[in-house]
Amino acid sequence: MPGEFDFIDWIQSQQRAGRLVQTPAGDDMAVLDWPAGELLLVGVDQVMDGVHFDSQIHSPRQIGKKVMNRNLSDCAAMACLPAAAVVSVALPRGCGLDYARELYLGMKDAADPFDCQIVGGDTGSWDGKLVCSVTVMGRCGGITPVLRSGAKPGDWIYVTGALGGSILGRHMDFVPRIKIARELAGQYRLTAMLDISDGLSRDLGHLCRASQVAAELQAAAIPIHDDARRLSLGDQIPPIEHALHDGEDHELVFTSPDDIPQATRVGQVADGSGIVIVQSGIARPLPVRAWEHRL
Amino acid sequence: MPGEFDFIDWIQSQQRAGRLVQTPAGDDMAVLDWPAGELLLVGVDQVMDGVHFDSQIHSPRQIGKKVMNRNLSDCAAMACLPAAAVVSVALPRGCGLDYARELYLGMKDAADPFDCQIVGGDTGSWDGKLVCSVTVMGRCGGITPVLRSGAKPGDWIYVTGALGGSILGRHMDFVPRIKIARELAGQYRLTAMLDISDGLSRDLGHLCRASQVAAELQAAAIPIHDDARRLSLGDQIPPIEHALHDGEDHELVFTSPDDIPQATRVGQVADGSGIVIVQSGIARPLPVRAWEHRL
Repeated sequence: MPGEFDFIDWIQSQQRAGRLVQTPAGDDMAVLDWPAGELLLVGVDQVMDGVHFDSQIHSPRQIGKKVMNRNLSDCAAMACLPAAAVVSVALPRGCGLDYARELYLGMKDAADPFDCQIVGGDTGSWDGKLVCSVTVMGRCGGITPVLRSGAKPGDWIYVTGALGGSILGRHMDFVPRIKIARELAGQYRLTAMLDISDGLSRDLGHLCRASQVAAELQAAAIPIHDDARRLSLGDQIPPIEHALHDGEDHELVFTSPDDIPQATRVGQVADGSGIVIVQSGIARPLPVRAWEHRL
Repeated sequence: MPGEFDFIDWIQSQQRAGRLVQTPAGDDMAVLDWPAGELLLVGVDQVMDGVHFDSQIHSPRQIGKKVMNRNLSDCAAMACLPAAAVVSVALPRGCGLDYARELYLGMKDAADPFDCQIVGGDTGSWDGKLVCSVTVMGRCGGITPVLRSGAKPGDWIYVTGALGGSILGRHMDFVPRIKIARELAGQYRLTAMLDISDGLSRDLGHLCRASQVAAELQAAAIPIHDDARRLSLGDQIPPIEHALHDGEDHELVFTSPDDIPQATRVGQVADGSGIVIVQSGIARPLPVRAWEHRL
């Protein structure tokens, strides 16, 4: 029966040293020659079977891709360039070497286009279900990281892409918005940004809280994804509600005093706290309906 | 019922910005001002309920401490200084905020003495058991990282501390050997090193394989922990076998051409491959009995 070390051997065979990576996976730690003057951004994000994916439905390749893309989406949210990642995987006992390889290849599929190298990991098997955690390290690459906390009253609120209904499949297969984040942050004054993982209502709430501001959204301006409309046919929940509250869109929400034609303007930052939404001329407080892990 | 964001709020209240940490946990990623010319070492290590601990027996504080210490032990193995860590935790649903806090505090207990700050994390709850993963980032701090791959025929083989029987309790409560690793690496020519997590026989095997050398161990020289003797009384396995094969000692095994009085000399590096052990004048190949995760 293949073991942990067969998998580690195989992963090592996939590794390469390079300008950044002095010693890749295979030692106790990887050694990176971090470029002088580059800020180091670091984030971690995990996926759990039955919560973020269903191992009965989704392939290990899809699962690996998702967990890496979630981390890359955090890089987009900071407008930084992913540089390297490390991975830990709790594998269901007996899943086999091929399953583990496919997980890794899914992560690699997602990371390669961004030149983000997987430089280390920890693999274990257990009686439980699959948990997979990725830590990504990014560098600023000439662009000041965009935090959540810089939004100012009067700034416009923008989103990329269209929102809602990601559960129909996009949540497993999205493109992290690194390219547009870097373009926009290089060209305009982005005052605050995050990626929409918990749903627009909750994530814009995080932005407002961190920036100590309020937000006014225009319902008619919010770009609704076709998946939200499709979902609405089944569950009778208006598409706009899906666009406002569904999670895992992994589009960007950001604020700027500038006119930005490459994104959709959905509202404006105001003094105070909380979010109101204006719909058919009526302003009402926006409830947070996005989900949260209960402890 | 408290949720993920209550826990995140609480963690944020524990954070501080500093010389290294420009933006602590709370944004999409933490922002570190990595010192110019410092190599960045990165490693990840996870613990799973029923494999590395038993949540029926061990407190969340102990579990948190163990997972952080395992990572700090990897820093010791490279002779680097831990600088920052990020954490992901898959919590059993309904475990409560206090449990999550205790886990975090256990990690902090372990990290604080080494001035290693927890700068980010991801928390989720699920129907499964507890999994906790830590990624640690270290800096070289004037000492070239000690890899596994530099042992040369003729080098002496050393270990710190005494080995075996960690299952009696030490596996949950050990001191990562960062201090002595730094002292030795600063004072002597350490050619290869790792921490003993999988058992001396297996970990020395990793060292030999990475360095493309063989090793000869002197059984009489191997420092046996009292726990190995105590365990032997119950299981009738000779204490030396426990010292050779038990995992999770988290002592260091290293090679050097120098005389090093602060550690115990247990053998010598030779040409070839594999490990032989000399016991009562008879040399025999050392089998690997330490455990490995089956996939």
